[in-house]
Amino acid sequence: MKFLVAGVGAMGTRFALKLKQAGNDVTVVDGWDLRLKSLKKDGLRANLDGQEVIEHVPAYGQTELPNNLRFDVVLFLTKSMQLEQMVKDLLPNFDGHTMALCLMNGIGHEQTLEKYLPKEQVFLGNTMWTAQMTRPDHVLLEDDGSCELSNVAPGEPQASQAKQLVEVLDKAGLKCHLLADPRYSVFRKGCVNGTLNTLCTLFECNLEEFSKTSHAHEMVVEVVKEFAAVGAKEGIDLDVDEAVHHVEDCYRVIGAHYPSMYQDLVKNNRRTEVDYINGYVASHGKKYGLKTPYCNLLTQEVHTKEDLQHAK
Amino acid sequence: MKFLVAGVGAMGTRFALKLKQAGNDVTVVDGWDLRLKSLKKDGLRANLDGQEVIEHVPAYGQTELPNNLRFDVVLFLTKSMQLEQMVKDLLPNFDGHTMALCLMNGIGHEQTLEKYLPKEQVFLGNTMWTAQMTRPDHVLLEDDGSCELSNVAPGEPQASQAKQLVEVLDKAGLKCHLLADPRYSVFRKGCVNGTLNTLCTLFECNLEEFSKTSHAHEMVVEVVKEFAAVGAKEGIDLDVDEAVHHVEDCYRVIGAHYPSMYQDLVKNNRRTEVDYINGYVASHGKKYGLKTPYCNLLTQEVHTKEDLQHAK
Repeated sequence: MKFLVAGVGAMGTRFALKLKQAGNDVTVVDGWDLRLKSLKKDGLRANLDGQEVIEHVPAYGQTELPNNLRFDVVLFLTKSMQLEQMVKDLLPNFDGHTMALCLMNGIGHEQTLEKYLPKEQVFLGNTMWTAQMTRPDHVLLEDDGSCELSNVAPGEPQASQAKQLVEVLDKAGLKCHLLADPRYSVFRKGCVNGTLNTLCTLFECNLEEFSKTSHAHEMVVEVVKEFAAVGAKEGIDLDVDEAVHHVEDCYRVIGAHYPSMYQDLVKNNRRTEVDYINGYVASHGKKYGLKTPYCNLLTQEVHTKEDLQHAK
Repeated sequence: MKFLVAGVGAMGTRFALKLKQAGNDVTVVDGWDLRLKSLKKDGLRANLDGQEVIEHVPAYGQTELPNNLRFDVVLFLTKSMQLEQMVKDLLPNFDGHTMALCLMNGIGHEQTLEKYLPKEQVFLGNTMWTAQMTRPDHVLLEDDGSCELSNVAPGEPQASQAKQLVEVLDKAGLKCHLLADPRYSVFRKGCVNGTLNTLCTLFECNLEEFSKTSHAHEMVVEVVKEFAAVGAKEGIDLDVDEAVHHVEDCYRVIGAHYPSMYQDLVKNNRRTEVDYINGYVASHGKKYGLKTPYCNLLTQEVHTKEDLQHAK
């Protein structure tokens, strides 16, 4: 299958690398000059489960991709705030057959994609893989993980295309499952990000350290309840107990992990995706007349930390 | 006037020192061995507005004060969680004339005092002075400040005694005012502590740094509203706008200050008084069936930080 991976930070590198290793045709595009330079010179370099690996793939700057290039799938793995510009910049490379697959953290990205593309071409999901950029030219890929996706528009050929995408990703070792309801899954993953990413960033700790604090469970439950309340207004009947369990299962599976938001703000002094996670619940809660105080305060707190650090 | 200052950390040292300098009879008592040792050996040592000063006063351990000693006033300036034991240990030194004056941070201390002493002997207030312990044998006293107090039980001789206390403290340069309603004042000061102390501790910044962050005002307003809601259930009609202004006026007056909770947790790795500030609003809000999510989450977050640091 012919993939364009749009956004090859830590997670984009994992997907591009695994897809390429499995024999797919992979091209990458990125908006960060320093990263792009190393991709062009040295390819995708990573420590993958303890082994140093390199895969060479065509790499382009976000605005330098030749208009005549076509792909079966454009896989979006940018930071949330970079998505819209990336979609706009890649529009010339879409035709009526190109599938747009978004596996990013954050809620509401399908709405961004649907502003520019027919719903029938949009595929949505999320991933529980971890990834960490150690340097602009190197990524650390450890821990077990998985991903899941589905078509956004019902019917054919979308349902068959989603199955095909799942097969290709699964064959590449990315442990991919087909979803019944992709938006349910995005909200469920949002619960992980809106608790562990946010709180581990505020407290500068990893998941296991956070799990041992005396109020961790109470905070997780309150945040998940707010995600569920906003989800309900958007037709998603989130199972709160199951979502809390899903969050807390991360302590066991990836306890030593420092979440991506921690990597952004604490390690790299970059502004975070919080507006697309807790901030989504806060702003949409307000729209629906719901109280979402935990998500409001957590969003304000992450921005306070960004402000104090003069994050870029 | 004959004072026993109970608790001579940073703030207790300011009051003991100023009262002694103004010619009052001052004795001090403290529960911390290392501090006590230096008080006995070197007296009250401080940098007071740029000048190194020393005052020698009788100093006793919390349980070693001779039972026959009597005082006009016992001024409580312990940490909130130490108050009850201090009151119990000093009970033998109270007679029917001893005034118990509490100027500590935290809400509800008059209830603790009234468990052991007649309401008529309890005087309550708060202080906006700052103080910082630089070493166990030295305190830094800078910035302008004030204090205010009143009798808790109405009528005479309490009202006259409160006036007398105000005069003595004011003469000692402590800029003291008589209050109409001491519990109103405690809630109003609680708003300062429940916003600036808590948030500057979580973010490890001073007041001025916090004031420049983009969500500071929103967070202050939400917390003050919760203090007002719980206050209303306790007969206190807090003026939210005035209280917010009182909080934000601190940016100008003591902007470079790191609040006492910051000093406890960030500087000295000690557990904080948060349960008597935001935690008071959280627990009493629950009792009254009110929602106080900002105070709930802030209390949980401060405890999370204590847990992660293994604070003592």
